[in-house]
Amino acid sequence: MATKYVDLPTVKFLMNQVQDLNTVLTKERYQDHDTESVDLFLDSVKQFADKELFPYFKEMDEKPAYHKDGTVHVHPQVEKMMLEGGALGLISAPFDYEDGGLQIPLLVHTAAGYILDAANNHLPGYSGLTSGAAELIIAFGSSALKEKFTPKMLTGEWGGTMCLTEPQAGSSLSDIVTKATPTDQGHYKISGQKIFISGGDHQYADNIVHLLLARIEGAPAGTKGISLFVVPKFRPDADGNLHSNDVTTVADFQKMGQRGYCTTHLGFGDKDDCEGYLVGEVNKGLHYMFLMMNGARIAVGRTASAIASGAYYASLEYANERPQGRKLSSDGTKNLKQKQSLIVEHPDVRRMLLLQKAMVEGSMNLVFRAARYHDLEHTATDEKEKHKYHTLLEMIIPVVKTYPSEGGIYSINNGLQVLGGYGFCADYILQQYYRDIRICAIYEGTTGIQSQDLLGRKMMLNNGEGAQLLMAEINETLEASLQTPGLENWAKHLAEQLQLTQQLLEHLVPFAMKGDYERFLADASIFMEFFSLIIIGWSWLEIGVVSKRALITGDISHEAEFYESKLEALEYFFVYELPKTKGHAEILMHPSSVTIKKEKEYIS
Amino acid sequence: MATKYVDLPTVKFLMNQVQDLNTVLTKERYQDHDTESVDLFLDSVKQFADKELFPYFKEMDEKPAYHKDGTVHVHPQVEKMMLEGGALGLISAPFDYEDGGLQIPLLVHTAAGYILDAANNHLPGYSGLTSGAAELIIAFGSSALKEKFTPKMLTGEWGGTMCLTEPQAGSSLSDIVTKATPTDQGHYKISGQKIFISGGDHQYADNIVHLLLARIEGAPAGTKGISLFVVPKFRPDADGNLHSNDVTTVADFQKMGQRGYCTTHLGFGDKDDCEGYLVGEVNKGLHYMFLMMNGARIAVGRTASAIASGAYYASLEYANERPQGRKLSSDGTKNLKQKQSLIVEHPDVRRMLLLQKAMVEGSMNLVFRAARYHDLEHTATDEKEKHKYHTLLEMIIPVVKTYPSEGGIYSINNGLQVLGGYGFCADYILQQYYRDIRICAIYEGTTGIQSQDLLGRKMMLNNGEGAQLLMAEINETLEASLQTPGLENWAKHLAEQLQLTQQLLEHLVPFAMKGDYERFLADASIFMEFFSLIIIGWSWLEIGVVSKRALITGDISHEAEFYESKLEALEYFFVYELPKTKGHAEILMHPSSVTIKKEKEYIS
Repeated sequence: MATKYVDLPTVKFLMNQVQDLNTVLTKERYQDHDTESVDLFLDSVKQFADKELFPYFKEMDEKPAYHKDGTVHVHPQVEKMMLEGGALGLISAPFDYEDGGLQIPLLVHTAAGYILDAANNHLPGYSGLTSGAAELIIAFGSSALKEKFTPKMLTGEWGGTMCLTEPQAGSSLSDIVTKATPTDQGHYKISGQKIFISGGDHQYADNIVHLLLARIEGAPAGTKGISLFVVPKFRPDADGNLHSNDVTTVADFQKMGQRGYCTTHLGFGDKDDCEGYLVGEVNKGLHYMFLMMNGARIAVGRTASAIASGAYYASLEYANERPQGRKLSSDGTKNLKQKQSLIVEHPDVRRMLLLQKAMVEGSMNLVFRAARYHDLEHTATDEKEKHKYHTLLEMIIPVVKTYPSEGGIYSINNGLQVLGGYGFCADYILQQYYRDIRICAIYEGTTGIQSQDLLGRKMMLNNGEGAQLLMAEINETLEASLQTPGLENWAKHLAEQLQLTQQLLEHLVPFAMKGDYERFLADASIFMEFFSLIIIGWSWLEIGVVSKRALITGDISHEAEFYESKLEALEYFFVYELPKTKGHAEILMHPSSVTIKKEKEYIS
Repeated sequence: MATKYVDLPTVKFLMNQVQDLNTVLTKERYQDHDTESVDLFLDSVKQFADKELFPYFKEMDEKPAYHKDGTVHVHPQVEKMMLEGGALGLISAPFDYEDGGLQIPLLVHTAAGYILDAANNHLPGYSGLTSGAAELIIAFGSSALKEKFTPKMLTGEWGGTMCLTEPQAGSSLSDIVTKATPTDQGHYKISGQKIFISGGDHQYADNIVHLLLARIEGAPAGTKGISLFVVPKFRPDADGNLHSNDVTTVADFQKMGQRGYCTTHLGFGDKDDCEGYLVGEVNKGLHYMFLMMNGARIAVGRTASAIASGAYYASLEYANERPQGRKLSSDGTKNLKQKQSLIVEHPDVRRMLLLQKAMVEGSMNLVFRAARYHDLEHTATDEKEKHKYHTLLEMIIPVVKTYPSEGGIYSINNGLQVLGGYGFCADYILQQYYRDIRICAIYEGTTGIQSQDLLGRKMMLNNGEGAQLLMAEINETLEASLQTPGLENWAKHLAEQLQLTQQLLEHLVPFAMKGDYERFLADASIFMEFFSLIIIGWSWLEIGVVSKRALITGDISHEAEFYESKLEALEYFFVYELPKTKGHAEILMHPSSVTIKKEKEYIS
């Protein structure tokens, strides 16, 4: 098995130098932290990942979670992740001191999560969802709810989940039918079925606290009639004793990947004895849930990029060790007396490695940027600034979730190919990364849904204010690049792409104006592919500016090779990936409506 | 589980009408066959696939082949495939009557293989490799070898394999070290190790006949010192009794996909008692093997396209049954009082389905074309015609092997996405297709190797004669399209792409002229992506001409909807896939050499 799964110096470089953690740390909320304490925190996370996550990565795939006798059985490392990870602050770190947290920036927490995901993506979901569920209770629940449920969630003794999806509704949350019936004791009675619930049940959690969307009888149809409830597996009484709350684990889903991360089908209220406690106000459930959604989508992007990181280093290690074939000489033949070359020397293998590096680091930086926007939004002291960073995060979030997921599939596909036949074999790890990452394009809103969000909502956000704010950010990087020797040309390339974006929107938006939303959004996924490349191009320019300036000023925080390798990956991205926008633009400008259903069905 | 895996009318339409089987059947070799007998043959193959292959597809994945006590244990259907399939002629059909064959065109055999592969790609490899091994013996072996080994191979009682790959050599066959030592009894003693041997051993074969590449001591270095041997697992004596031949099954490879199709590691001559029988002349082994390689590569392309066919119908079936979401109304909102739509009505889902249809049928037609060229080459009565079809096959073969494999990954990736979360779950079949197809881009020369073959050898074949012949074929389709109402524009699009190809070659070839082969071939994989789209565009135009003319003339061999659905898929391909060449061209024209190794390593 490969030995490296993430490059810690790169994680720290992108977090500290490129995303400028220092500026974030100047905020009052983070006054107890400095770059050194953060450094130590990430080092301890890396040690934890080295010891408790990475060594079990393959085993968790080979011995997947399973459902037996009404319980889901998971790998013993789940307990380590929850309890030791909990003790390390991995669940609670971003929370307020008063809620048991460390008031760490999400940027730092995201860097930590990246390390964990890269080491073993089957484990951090257990703690991550627990953190998310606790966050919802803390943000919108009563203090009684908070006191009753969150302390043991933050230590990892209790798990937490998000229960949204139902069998008949899928992504269409307006069609949720799980029922909440008021009682005269203040709580509600819950009945219904939820599927695809990650971490929904396992033998190591003393209790599992579900944050569940349901409909109170008589509520308005659609998304405006959905309320949020805390529904624990066990009800704690005043003395802390636990009593069954009529939550049943109906089944688990066996999956192609992430097999150690259990996915469950839960039943609520089969015996009419399932209590649910309203969070916040009635009918605001989806609103609350969606206030957390940006965080969840940052986490999916982070996971996807991190899985691709693990795959990259595994294929790089193989390429650096495997001799095969020879360099072509100037007459196009091979000299058989030469020793075989290492495959890392073949241009086509190098292309596949650079592709992975460009995708992994470019997307890591984008994910970190999203986390920084989140921190700047949540610590802003004036409303205008808060609004600005909120809007910026809203603008990039569909790409933050999608590019690492889709680009990650593409990247790992190339990583697997580096190994040839071995890439397909279970003894090598690439095939597991290939299977694991596939879910990321589905989690928390599929690529299709993200694409509709990007083109249909975000590109017009606040009548174009969102797009303007984003352009201002990109222009800042462009200007810095134009003043940095060696980056001018790439900056011009990217500027052309921005103009092209403008042209495309001028072509597409009139469909919406005319009320033809179906046509307007028909090619949203192509627009996503197009726009993602521009956003990652921006990400690389940003990395490029810092790297190039470090080389010019002789900054010795890293060896020159470190910065040079970033500039080579930037060049790869601008030469091999960004030009693909040409094809996307051509597709988006075409006059066909072949994907729009006509009277007669022609897909057969 | 889905119920449909292939559209038999489409298979027959592409074979009969588009690839014009009738013209092939006029050849003397095929005089006993006509379209009706072929029709009946394919119907019986489909019935066999329905009954003996498709129902076991999932089970063969869930209960994979395994190695125990020195033997590989495979699913019982392997025996059915070999014996019943053998009786149906699936192993022997293309062979001469005198060798026990039916003298069926490869075009028909390929159509039959397509049906089998689509039904269950874990099974046809067993019979296919046996057929290939027998073909090698018949073509180049002595009559004694032929009589001794091939009759029981053609009935399916004995299996056959190709033993090329060795642990230290991988794709680099010049580095093979398996040894053949002459004896004074006429045979050779074989010693060495072979890996990745498909169908290398199983409990249902009375014997397995390996066609093995080895080096005779003192042979020239590299590929010119490799000889071909028949090395049976058991040596048959004059009475037909079988005696051990010191061939050991060392291990099997557990894989991500095609888990029912065993892949073995074989040892030869551990006890110095492994006999090998030379096939043809010494040191010509690789030459013989490569004369069979086009057939093998057609088979991989066929398998890949067929796997994508199974996936397409599974996702289409789901899309036609699954309600979710609603159509957007003219103010961009959804009317919740409406029933949920079937997901097949959403443009983004339709895009993913059309993508699959365009890829599956476009590549099926290309694979059939390759088989037709093979037939026309092998039945040509004058040398010029033989040379023409041989050259045409050589020209397209890298694409025939690669596009279905790479496009198939892309296609099935979209098919899986149609199912959302269910696509990732083991209860649904998409995830199996997704895993199975991944090997096709590696089998019989990886995509990287095919790409070097395409750009480095084929585009210059016979000083450009190959490219000219191919252009003449494409131009024929272009001219027919220009005269077919509704296809003129697509024909112009494709003609532009051909001009672009010319420009790219004018840019790339000078590197080869200057002796910089490394640079010339560095982006061969991008050129493959580019050129594949053009070849599939051609394939679709060809389908379009026949379909459109059928509609115009009122041909009633199929319903109008059948032809119209082909034209919609054509439009999809020209609108959504072909324009991607713009991006590829931009990449190929760029002035960077970032993938070429420099003195200092920068990939880290």
